[in-house]
Amino acid sequence: MSTSEYTVKGMTCGHCVSAVTEELTKLPGVSDVQVDLASGRVTVQSEAPLAEQDVVAAVDEAGYEVVTA
Amino acid sequence: MSTSEYTVKGMTCGHCVSAVTEELTKLPGVSDVQVDLASGRVTVQSEAPLAEQDVVAAVDEAGYEVVTA
Repeated sequence: MSTSEYTVKGMTCGHCVSAVTEELTKLPGVSDVQVDLASGRVTVQSEAPLAEQDVVAAVDEAGYEVVTA
Repeated sequence: MSTSEYTVKGMTCGHCVSAVTEELTKLPGVSDVQVDLASGRVTVQSEAPLAEQDVVAAVDEAGYEVVTA
């Protein structure tokens, strides 16, 4: 198992959290996504380490931006 | 045709706008819903005047609050 953390910019409500969670959950091997709306901190559990570009692309797909990885 | 305006509190993003629009569009006779996210101003076009309690209930269902009607 691998755990990675990111900070995502632009999430303002529970719908934003859902959108980011949904896109990240679609990534292969991802088993859990936790989002803290107040801080923008996103924690992803996956079977193997994730490619950062895949995470950035998934967050972008949801309409938000990874600011630190 | 009837046009009514409300101010809705708590909308922070496009998803919130969509949720409010969707619930208000479900009200009988509603033909158009316009939401200005920045001001919270919601304009509803309907065949006949709407009962304020129905509008308040629809906005509540979406997870937000009508502050002025």
